Amino acid sequence: MSGEKFRAISVADFFYKNREIAGFDNPVRATYTIVRELVENALDACEQYSILPDIRVKLIDEGGSIYRLKVEDNGIGIPYEQVPYAFGQVLFGSKYTLRQSRGIFGLGGKMAVLYGQITAHSEVKVTSSQGGYEKYTFELSINIQDNKPIIRRKEIKPNPSRWRGTIVEIRFEGDYARAKPKIVEYFKQTSIILPYANLFFIDPDGILYRFDRVTNVMPKPPQEVKPHPHGIDIEMVKRMINMSRSSTLLDFLVNNFHRVGYATALSFLKSIKMDPKVDPRNLKVEELVKLVNKMKEYDKFRPPDAQCLSCIGTDLLRIGIVKEFQPEFVAVTQRPPSAYSGHPFVVEAAIAYGGRIPLMPPDEILVFRYANKIPLLYDLHSDVTMKVIKKINWKNYKMDLTTMPFAFFVHICSTKIPYKTVGKEFIADKPEVEYEIEWALKTCARQIRAYLSKKEKINVMQKRLSIFEKYFPMISQYSMELSGESKPPNYEKVIRRLQSHAKENGERSIIKVN
Amino acid sequence: MSGEKFRAISVADFFYKNREIAGFDNPVRATYTIVRELVENALDACEQYSILPDIRVKLIDEGGSIYRLKVEDNGIGIPYEQVPYAFGQVLFGSKYTLRQSRGIFGLGGKMAVLYGQITAHSEVKVTSSQGGYEKYTFELSINIQDNKPIIRRKEIKPNPSRWRGTIVEIRFEGDYARAKPKIVEYFKQTSIILPYANLFFIDPDGILYRFDRVTNVMPKPPQEVKPHPHGIDIEMVKRMINMSRSSTLLDFLVNNFHRVGYATALSFLKSIKMDPKVDPRNLKVEELVKLVNKMKEYDKFRPPDAQCLSCIGTDLLRIGIVKEFQPEFVAVTQRPPSAYSGHPFVVEAAIAYGGRIPLMPPDEILVFRYANKIPLLYDLHSDVTMKVIKKINWKNYKMDLTTMPFAFFVHICSTKIPYKTVGKEFIADKPEVEYEIEWALKTCARQIRAYLSKKEKINVMQKRLSIFEKYFPMISQYSMELSGESKPPNYEKVIRRLQSHAKENGERSIIKVN
Repeated sequence: MSGEKFRAISVADFFYKNREIAGFDNPVRATYTIVRELVENALDACEQYSILPDIRVKLIDEGGSIYRLKVEDNGIGIPYEQVPYAFGQVLFGSKYTLRQSRGIFGLGGKMAVLYGQITAHSEVKVTSSQGGYEKYTFELSINIQDNKPIIRRKEIKPNPSRWRGTIVEIRFEGDYARAKPKIVEYFKQTSIILPYANLFFIDPDGILYRFDRVTNVMPKPPQEVKPHPHGIDIEMVKRMINMSRSSTLLDFLVNNFHRVGYATALSFLKSIKMDPKVDPRNLKVEELVKLVNKMKEYDKFRPPDAQCLSCIGTDLLRIGIVKEFQPEFVAVTQRPPSAYSGHPFVVEAAIAYGGRIPLMPPDEILVFRYANKIPLLYDLHSDVTMKVIKKINWKNYKMDLTTMPFAFFVHICSTKIPYKTVGKEFIADKPEVEYEIEWALKTCARQIRAYLSKKEKINVMQKRLSIFEKYFPMISQYSMELSGESKPPNYEKVIRRLQSHAKENGERSIIKVN
Repeated sequence: MSGEKFRAISVADFFYKNREIAGFDNPVRATYTIVRELVENALDACEQYSILPDIRVKLIDEGGSIYRLKVEDNGIGIPYEQVPYAFGQVLFGSKYTLRQSRGIFGLGGKMAVLYGQITAHSEVKVTSSQGGYEKYTFELSINIQDNKPIIRRKEIKPNPSRWRGTIVEIRFEGDYARAKPKIVEYFKQTSIILPYANLFFIDPDGILYRFDRVTNVMPKPPQEVKPHPHGIDIEMVKRMINMSRSSTLLDFLVNNFHRVGYATALSFLKSIKMDPKVDPRNLKVEELVKLVNKMKEYDKFRPPDAQCLSCIGTDLLRIGIVKEFQPEFVAVTQRPPSAYSGHPFVVEAAIAYGGRIPLMPPDEILVFRYANKIPLLYDLHSDVTMKVIKKINWKNYKMDLTTMPFAFFVHICSTKIPYKTVGKEFIADKPEVEYEIEWALKTCARQIRAYLSKKEKINVMQKRLSIFEKYFPMISQYSMELSGESKPPNYEKVIRRLQSHAKENGERSIIKVN
C-alpha cells in the first residue's frame, strides 16, 4: 500500500491557492479589494505619523480586462532596504505591533501584487522616498513557491524637491464596470470618516471623484502598548519571558504588561500563592500554565486604556457627516474604552436625521459601518451592528425608520478588530462589542428624541401663535366694540413677545441637545 | 522622522494571531472545530484508500475547562519520518494535489495542535503505523515563531498485530456543554453521508453516540488529475513549464492538461497562431500571457470529467437518509459533472418526505448541506443552497413547506469547493454551482410531485371505492326489486376487481417514481 505524497508549501503559495479568502474571488471583487488595500496602506503611511493625507488614485483601462492602478501618497515613505520585502514577501510588514492600524494582516498589499502577477503577469512598480536626497524605484514580483521577492529592476534618482511618500503601480485583470458602485462608495464613506484627508480618484472613464479636506484637525496617532493581562496566552508569555531581562516574576509582570503596577502585581501573585522573587525563566510548565490562566481570570487588573487607539472623536465624526449629508440634526457619541479578551476597543456612533439623507425603502436601513476607519461595505446583515439596530425599539425614541430619513454610523476602533474573515467584511458579535454598540446608539437616539420633542414643541407653539395671530385682531375688535372704546387694544406687543419666546426656547433647546 | 519597525512572521504565527479565521473564535467554537478537523483527517486517511472507516472519538473533561480528545482511525497511517511535519508544521501536508479531499488547506490539524498548545500547553501525542512490524509514538509541539515541529519524545514499539491506523491525542481549553449540540449534530450528519462508516463518539458525560455502518459499499476513491485548461493562471503554467520535459508546445499541452489530445491542442494553437513546435521554455512573456489567456477562453476543450471526484452516488445517499429518517418517500438525484473556472464539480441532492422527518416551525427549513462529504453546520443563510431553496416556487411541485414535513439534502463535491472562509462554513454563489443545485433540487421536486400526485389519486380511488361499497348493496337490492328477481346481482366481484386495480395502480406508480 503506497503512502501519501507529503510536501510543504509557502504561505505565499497558500494564499495564492486560496485567494478567495482574502477577498480575491473574481475580477469584480478583486478590483475593489486591490483599490482598497493599496489606499489603506497609503492612509496608514500618513496617519500613523500625523501627516494630513493627500491620496491620489488613478485606474486606467488597458483593454482586454486589464487595468493599471496607481496609488500615490504623501506618507512616511518606505526605507530603501525594506521595499522588496514590503511588497514581495507575504507576512512581512510593519503592522505586527500592538496598536491600532488598518492592515493588521500584513497581507493585503502583497495579495494585490500576487493577484496582478498571476492574472496579468504584472510586476509591481514602487517609487518611494522618506524625504531624503534620493528617491528609489523598484520593479518587483513574488517568487510564490519560496515566498521571496524578485527584484526585476531598481533605480535610484536624486530627490531635489525632498519629496516624501510612496507611489505604487500595478496591473491586474479586473472588471471596473461592475466594481464601480462599491469603489465609489468606498471613497465616499472613507471621506466621511476622514474629513482631514484629500482623496482624489480618477476612474477609467476619466471621471474625477474628489473628496476635499474640510479640516486640518487630525486624531492623535495611536501609541504602541504592552499586552493587557487579560489578552494573553501561554505562547505569548513564553515569548515574553525569553525576551525579558527581568530576573524576578514581580519585575517581569510590571515591566511587560499594560497597566500593571507593583502593588497590583504583588497582590495578584499573593492571591495565587506564587513567589514574586522567582526567576520567570525557572518556572515549571505547570506553574507557567497556572500563572497564565490566573492572569486571564484575575479581575483586579486595571482595564486597558485607549492610548493605543486612534479614535475619530465626536467633532471629526460630526464634521464628516455634515460635510456629506448636511443633516437637519446629528447626534454623536463616543463610548468610554472597553475591552474584549484583553483587547481594548472604543465604539463611536452617530445618528443623523433629515437634510440630504434619503428616505430608505421599507426594510432597508442606511447604515455606515467602520472598523479602524475602514468602511465595511459587504455583508451588512451578518454584522453585529445590524443585529443591534434590529434589537432596539426605535419607537421609544420617537424614531420611525420607515417614514423618517435616518442614517446610522458606527465606528469601532481596536488593536484587534474581531473580524470573522481575512476579507475584513464584518464584525463578529462579541458580547462586549455588542453591548457598547447598543449603548452608543441608544445615547444618540436619546439626543434624537430630545431634538424631535423640542421640534414638536416649537411646532405646537408656532401653531398656537398662528391661531393667536388669526384671532387676536377679531378679539380686540370685539372687545373694543363691547367696551365702547374707539381704538382696539395694542396686541402686537403680546404677539411679538410670544414669538420671541417660542423662538428662543426652541433654539436654546436645539443647541442644548446637539 | 523615524521609520517603521519591519519584520516577517511565520505562517504559524499568522494563524496563531488570527486563529478566528480558521474557526477558533472561542472555546465553544474551538471545541467543535478541533473535533471536526481531527475526524476529517481520520476519514480521509481511510476513504482515499478504500478502507471502510472505523473512527473512535473520545472526549474527556479534565476539569478547569480543559478537555482531552482522542481520535483513532484504521486508515493508511502516516509514514514515520512524516509524523512531525504532518502535525507540527503549518502548510505541510499530503493534500496539495488535484483531487477531492476534505482538508484542502493543510491547516486544520495543525491549528488544533496550535490551539491546544496555547490554551492548555498541550503537546499532541500521535501513534501511527502503516501496518508494518513497528508502530511509533511521537509527542510534539510547534515552534510557532519558526513554523517547525519540536519533538518532545518519540518511541518505537513492535506491532505484532500488524495494526494499521493513527491515534491522535490532544488537550485544549474548551466548552463541551455549549458545543455539544453542534458536535452531536456533526456526527449525525456525517453518518448520513457516510453510511459505510462506523462512527463512535464517547462524550465527557460518558454517553456513547454510536453510528453503525449499514453498507459495505464505498464510493470509489478520487483519482489525481492534471489541471483543466480553463482552471489555470500564469503562475501555474510557468511552474508546469519548469517541471515539464516536453520540448514542444504541442507536447507540453498534451502531456500536462486534463483531456487535451493532439487534435484539440493543434487546432487550439492554430486558432491563436502559435507555433506547435516552439520550446515552451523559450516563450516570451507576452507569448506566455497570450497562451494562458487564450487557453482560459477557448471553448473547444472538452469539459473536465469527474474521475478526480468521489461522489456519494444516489444509492448511498438514499441509504443514509433512509437509515436516519425512514421517510415515506425520498427523491434522489445526481447531476452530470460541471465545472467553474476549470474546477470540476458534481452536485447530488435529495428531498425526503414524511416518516421521521419533523414538521418545521414556520420560516424554518430542514436543510442538510455537505461539501466533499463534510456537513456544513454554520451560516446556512449565507449559503448558496438556501438562496436556491428560497428561489424555487415549491407550490409548483405540490410541496407546501409550511404544512408538510420535508428535508433537503445537497452535496457538492469538487477539487476546489468555493468556500468563502477558511472555516469551511458556507459556499459562495458561483453561478455554475447555483445552476446545478437548482436543477438537482427541481429534479427531486418533480419526483416528489409525481409521488404526491399518485398518492392523491390512490386516495381518490379509495374514496370512490368506499362510496361504491356503501351504495352497491342498496343499488343491487333496488335493481333486484325493480327487475322482480329473487336474488340481488353479485357485485362483490366488481368491488374486488376495483380494489385490486386501485392497489396495483398505486403501488406501481410509487415504485416507478421512486
